[in-house]
Amino acid sequence: MLSKKSILSVDDLDTGEIMQVLESADSFMDISRREIKKVPTLRGKTVASLFFEPSTRTRISFEIAAKRLSADIVNFSAQASSLLKGETIMDTLRTILSMQVDLLVIRHRDSGTVKLMDSVVNVPVINAGDGKHQHPTQALLDIYTIKNHFNRLEGLKVALVGDYINSRVARSCQSLFEKMGLEVTIVAPAMLLPEDWSGFKVEHSIDRIIEDTDILYMLRMQFERQDRKLYPSVREYNRYLSLDMKRLSRMKKDSVVMHPGPVNRGIEIYDEIMELAKEKGNNILIDEQVTAGVAVRMALLYLVLGQS
Amino acid sequence: MLSKKSILSVDDLDTGEIMQVLESADSFMDISRREIKKVPTLRGKTVASLFFEPSTRTRISFEIAAKRLSADIVNFSAQASSLLKGETIMDTLRTILSMQVDLLVIRHRDSGTVKLMDSVVNVPVINAGDGKHQHPTQALLDIYTIKNHFNRLEGLKVALVGDYINSRVARSCQSLFEKMGLEVTIVAPAMLLPEDWSGFKVEHSIDRIIEDTDILYMLRMQFERQDRKLYPSVREYNRYLSLDMKRLSRMKKDSVVMHPGPVNRGIEIYDEIMELAKEKGNNILIDEQVTAGVAVRMALLYLVLGQS
Amino acid sequence: MLSKKSILSVDDLDTGEIMQVLESADSFMDISRREIKKVPTLRGKTVASLFFEPSTRTRISFEIAAKRLSADIVNFSAQASSLLKGETIMDTLRTILSMQVDLLVIRHRDSGTVKLMDSVVNVPVINAGDGKHQHPTQALLDIYTIKNHFNRLEGLKVALVGDYINSRVARSCQSLFEKMGLEVTIVAPAMLLPEDWSGFKVEHSIDRIIEDTDILYMLRMQFERQDRKLYPSVREYNRYLSLDMKRLSRMKKDSVVMHPGPVNRGIEIYDEIMELAKEKGNNILIDEQVTAGVAVRMALLYLVLGQS
Repeated sequence: MLSKKSILSVDDLDTGEIMQVLESADSFMDISRREIKKVPTLRGKTVASLFFEPSTRTRISFEIAAKRLSADIVNFSAQASSLLKGETIMDTLRTILSMQVDLLVIRHRDSGTVKLMDSVVNVPVINAGDGKHQHPTQALLDIYTIKNHFNRLEGLKVALVGDYINSRVARSCQSLFEKMGLEVTIVAPAMLLPEDWSGFKVEHSIDRIIEDTDILYMLRMQFERQDRKLYPSVREYNRYLSLDMKRLSRMKKDSVVMHPGPVNRGIEIYDEIMELAKEKGNNILIDEQVTAGVAVRMALLYLVLGQS
Repeated sequence: MLSKKSILSVDDLDTGEIMQVLESADSFMDISRREIKKVPTLRGKTVASLFFEPSTRTRISFEIAAKRLSADIVNFSAQASSLLKGETIMDTLRTILSMQVDLLVIRHRDSGTVKLMDSVVNVPVINAGDGKHQHPTQALLDIYTIKNHFNRLEGLKVALVGDYINSRVARSCQSLFEKMGLEVTIVAPAMLLPEDWSGFKVEHSIDRIIEDTDILYMLRMQFERQDRKLYPSVREYNRYLSLDMKRLSRMKKDSVVMHPGPVNRGIEIYDEIMELAKEKGNNILIDEQVTAGVAVRMALLYLVLGQS
Repeated sequence: MLSKKSILSVDDLDTGEIMQVLESADSFMDISRREIKKVPTLRGKTVASLFFEPSTRTRISFEIAAKRLSADIVNFSAQASSLLKGETIMDTLRTILSMQVDLLVIRHRDSGTVKLMDSVVNVPVINAGDGKHQHPTQALLDIYTIKNHFNRLEGLKVALVGDYINSRVARSCQSLFEKMGLEVTIVAPAMLLPEDWSGFKVEHSIDRIIEDTDILYMLRMQFERQDRKLYPSVREYNRYLSLDMKRLSRMKKDSVVMHPGPVNRGIEIYDEIMELAKEKGNNILIDEQVTAGVAVRMALLYLVLGQS
């Protein structure tokens, strides 16, 4: 039912397809709340999960999604593999594909490798994050979380705060949020922005938007992806970009805080807020994002495979 | 049907509940002997196994137990994880929980961490071993093995021999065995005992109890958990605490040898005895303990989850 | 239906049994081409996969085979294990076996260890590769691939090219191919041959057989298994043993190229040929071998377990 074979970027889905994903996710959300969280939809399908970069949440989220759809899933991680024997990554891919796998979930450290891999295989690929490029399932689960909370999307104001330049989540979210009618502001100092940010609405401090934003989306500081020492000091970060209790208290009623996780406590978000988030009825949606993740990934696996 | 949400310690179960676990384990033992070792009891449940310490037998035992009950199980181990990205362990826990997992099996290196984790989640937790503190599923499979062999529990004499101070197995077994009416003696030199062992029945050499004990329970020497060099030399160990053929021959008819595994051959138990144990009809119950482990863990998963 | 309990070597199967494996593989090949690639044949069976050596293709191939037969499979790898705690490998084996596992798939670095392990257990063992000794499932999938392509076996000429001395694949293929009526030539310099190769038909250069062979079977250069520096230089290798486009063009119509994978590009086979192999309708059967691998392993699991 989706027009493209694979989901490599949020741009692979048009608005209608995105709505279809969100609606499917709604039904799968119901399934995950049942006593028996399992449907036979993808029985007899084989999903291969190829992670060339360490991951907990995304890998396990896909694994749970596949299992709740009754698919078989095999995990391949670069460390435990024949890459040790000098096999090229493309030969690895051909090998796994020759085992008549129905779908590949791929994460890779280098931007674009997933796209290259997709171009040589005839089964669907879902990008589980490639370098600094795209993380479409994250953006989709975020938009699902937002829609679920606000019951609308059009016109909501969202601020993406922090390490934009190193974040694949930022790129996917910006693009998807704008497509769905949200107003996106990037909050970052020049050193965390791309060289050309013409066309972006940019602010350099969280204080400039905190009272007016509906969704405060804190980006993870990607220390592990920074090539040069271009990030600000923690002190600088805290001054302009961190969320503390004082700033939290200035936010509008009904506004929400999001983060793709894992949070660097004391950098993007202060400890007190993380503790506060555990209590019910607050507007910190980090856990809700994770829950949505399983449902959205079930929807994607289903739509990509279910009627093929 | 169990009164507590979680099983963190053997003290979380009263005598009636322990009997219930043993009876359930009996039926699951039958299932593991069938051609088709699988029942649909926990279909559609998701079990997450979180091991922050390396393990073979316990992890695989729980995995087999979950699969034979038709539950889905996802494995999370600390090495392959986002802990690499500086995520705190409690945030990891919240993430996994937000995926609507039904039960957590947790092993952790630090005493008490499992309890802390349990206190912040609303799903059942089964402690798969925490530091030097508790290993309740081991003690339960041991009592199952004993009951299965002797057809009674009350009044049996058991000696826990060796590295008491560093052993979570010892602590769990001592407590559970006493609760079930066994007479427990600890056989260890002062350096392998806690500072305050008032209330314990203690002997310093295996020779003092070997002819009178029903169950000789050899504790694993926990080299990896010893902070200081407080253990005796191998020579000293052998002299007072090891089981060799000569000592074995002095044991009562119908008495048995147990060990939670893996055995340090030549320390707790001599090679010849390990070889002897392979033959049928002897009273070395090490393999029987492992077999009981799957059945007892099936029973625990069932009782904790089955009727919720 | 097979006469031996286990499959440790190709010699464990007689000609009739081999034909039976190939016929079963044919039906399982059909299943892997269906929409629902799953049959309930081994529901409720537990397969344990024990890999004491890193592997991608073989481990995942067995995992997919087991899952398509609805068996439960647990993976044990030496790194993540109690071997860390000093457990002997044989004690590990007893532990896993005591969990009432129905079949073991074992790979081990040392020749003969798998046989030793088999001798102490009463469940079937499938050898997934032991040192330089045997890799029977590889040879069986190769003969399946050949039969599938040529529709006959008797009288076909096959050349095993390259690192014979370090290759368990070579040993298994040579033996199985000869048993099935193929004419085997080994193409290797003396330094890559065993000391006594009387009884072998040997050539020292690929050019001596390239125009006359039906199957050019390129062996993987086992750098990781070479004790001394006995291999030729890459230049020497290329001169006498590598497959380049020029040599490929000299091959007979209908002749085929095979390789057990992973290929050392530029050593056994040149890059251009690997790229060419991606296109349909060529005679480079490397991907077909992988596909056959799942079907043949399903057949073996079924025949060894299915009617027990």
